[in-house]
Amino acid sequence: MAKISILGAGRVGSAMALDMAKVHDVLVADQSEEALDNLKERNPEIKTLEADLSKKEEIQKAIGEADLVISAVPGFMGYTTLETIIRNEKDVVDISFFPEDAMELNTLAKTRNVTAVVDCGVAPGMDNILLGYWNKQMDVQFFECLVGGLPEEKKWPFNYKAPFSPIDVIEEYTRPARLVENGTTVIKPPLSEVEVIDFPGIGELEAFNSDGLRSLIQTMPNIPNMKEKTLRYPGHAQNIMVLKESGFFEEKPIRYQDQDIRPIDFTTKILFNEWLLKPGDREFTAMRVIIRGEKEGKPFQVSYHLLDKYNDQTQTSSMARTTGYTATAAANLLVEGLYSNPGINPPEYLGAEGDATLEYILGYLEEREIIYQREEN
Amino acid sequence: MAKISILGAGRVGSAMALDMAKVHDVLVADQSEEALDNLKERNPEIKTLEADLSKKEEIQKAIGEADLVISAVPGFMGYTTLETIIRNEKDVVDISFFPEDAMELNTLAKTRNVTAVVDCGVAPGMDNILLGYWNKQMDVQFFECLVGGLPEEKKWPFNYKAPFSPIDVIEEYTRPARLVENGTTVIKPPLSEVEVIDFPGIGELEAFNSDGLRSLIQTMPNIPNMKEKTLRYPGHAQNIMVLKESGFFEEKPIRYQDQDIRPIDFTTKILFNEWLLKPGDREFTAMRVIIRGEKEGKPFQVSYHLLDKYNDQTQTSSMARTTGYTATAAANLLVEGLYSNPGINPPEYLGAEGDATLEYILGYLEEREIIYQREEN
Repeated sequence: MAKISILGAGRVGSAMALDMAKVHDVLVADQSEEALDNLKERNPEIKTLEADLSKKEEIQKAIGEADLVISAVPGFMGYTTLETIIRNEKDVVDISFFPEDAMELNTLAKTRNVTAVVDCGVAPGMDNILLGYWNKQMDVQFFECLVGGLPEEKKWPFNYKAPFSPIDVIEEYTRPARLVENGTTVIKPPLSEVEVIDFPGIGELEAFNSDGLRSLIQTMPNIPNMKEKTLRYPGHAQNIMVLKESGFFEEKPIRYQDQDIRPIDFTTKILFNEWLLKPGDREFTAMRVIIRGEKEGKPFQVSYHLLDKYNDQTQTSSMARTTGYTATAAANLLVEGLYSNPGINPPEYLGAEGDATLEYILGYLEEREIIYQREEN
Repeated sequence: MAKISILGAGRVGSAMALDMAKVHDVLVADQSEEALDNLKERNPEIKTLEADLSKKEEIQKAIGEADLVISAVPGFMGYTTLETIIRNEKDVVDISFFPEDAMELNTLAKTRNVTAVVDCGVAPGMDNILLGYWNKQMDVQFFECLVGGLPEEKKWPFNYKAPFSPIDVIEEYTRPARLVENGTTVIKPPLSEVEVIDFPGIGELEAFNSDGLRSLIQTMPNIPNMKEKTLRYPGHAQNIMVLKESGFFEEKPIRYQDQDIRPIDFTTKILFNEWLLKPGDREFTAMRVIIRGEKEGKPFQVSYHLLDKYNDQTQTSSMARTTGYTATAAANLLVEGLYSNPGINPPEYLGAEGDATLEYILGYLEEREIIYQREEN
């Protein structure tokens, strides 16, 4: 039993709090009293703290007693929050998916003797862990991850609800996508190279480029071909492009009634309403990872499929669980002393530890009914 | 030679001013000094007056000396401007296409002895004139008008440039469309019933419902089937629906940084840039009118095709010319004493006058290289 501080009581933060609280002493901090009250209703033993986590002092107050911190703040706050946690010498698992380069905090984390696991969700996260493991087992030539969180109910034109922060969803459509092709890092437009995917259990989806490889580009220089694509229902990317190509994603402000407004900000506001995933809205997480190359001199491929659905029993979203429990698996690894490596640890470092660590994580997820189906050939 | 006042020096207003000034003494009023200067450069004999036409006194100043007025102000100003002109007892031809019911000014126009011809463009306008004529020649069972102003250059996703006021373009996509089916007026959503049209000289276009019948619904109660559809390049309507169905056309304001902003207003602003037709951008006007029924007891159909292109010589847009010269044809009819009928006159009244009037108008347009190809069978 350890003292755990969780920053952020959104869908994922709350799911993680409830999970950790089964075993540990949990405190959750968030700016929303309502979110904290909801959490306390579900488990009165969880301690809550209303806090403005954009302020260093309030982060410090939230994490002061913790053995380990889990950071689930929005992406735009993630880097500075992580830095504060590290300066306060707390081990941490981070799922805020910030755009900055986490490795810039590596030296700081090492000197403060902090083990910080970053990007520890479903993707980035689980796909990194799997690749980190298989990269030690074989000579990897090709890695591909397709991933998406989708609503069960389809409403045209986007057939989409945002299972996480809508601001971060728009990021996926604007951040240029980095891939590795034939040993070179290439940059492609987000939403490009749309392809039709037949996903077992769902049917036809589409996949397009998004900037999901992140740390793998640096940590896996030996792998000549790597890509990550986002999954959506067919037609979604083209309809996003309608907005994008006609000026609705522009970052240059336009003058509107004595105010300068960036089209992308106004568009985000409108889409926030359109894409609002309401409590109880059923959604699912789909992911496919393909790792291909040579094992013991012979061609070898291993693939993983995840199809996880909204959990009626616990009333938690699939995205919250698949993201959150990967992070809590890592958090428990750290708390149980099964993993320690001062510095910034992208999730592939955990996979690289080998069978025991991978089994621990997959087992932890399986206990929570998150199954990664593996196929080898 | 008569004294003509033209309100509005936009594309259409300017085209009409240059046309009328060949024969008449023309004054043009507009709020834009730049537009007026451009006009004066092209014909220094045209008198110009900088005026805020939203103010009654300034309208009065602009029309005080006129024998006839042509109103080409934006749609949202059209009704009140027309009312002022009528109160000042000036004959008028109006192409401002306002949403209000012009017939509400009928009694006023009669008592002031004013002949006011409204909706006198290409459509509404020429299609009304043709139907008004044929309605006297035969028993009309079916009337259909397809019309659109399109750019020669296609830019995805809308493949569209607005040859007239962009605010009025958006109106076409939001105003419910009134049609007549089997003798009953029905209301259909704008952009509905998209169909593929093969247009001679262009190829494949699409046509969808828009609210263009206007006065014909009241003046032609004997015709059981009437519709007007807007022409665009294929795919346009669906891409407008992407915006519409996801909240970008909402009229209910949303709160954005201490301001209440209607999504439709912000969308209009963005599309204004996207759809801006720059001087010199080549565009064309396409219209097809089909009138079908019985003539002398036998099945009879007459159809008209217009395909008018940007005029390099005069550097005027096709939309300005096809709209503007229909209005100036009507203006000359009035000025020459060839038509007089105190009250509000939708264009079908002119067509109903018979052969001489129709020939005058078609001849006037032909002199200006606007050809309506007729086919009978």
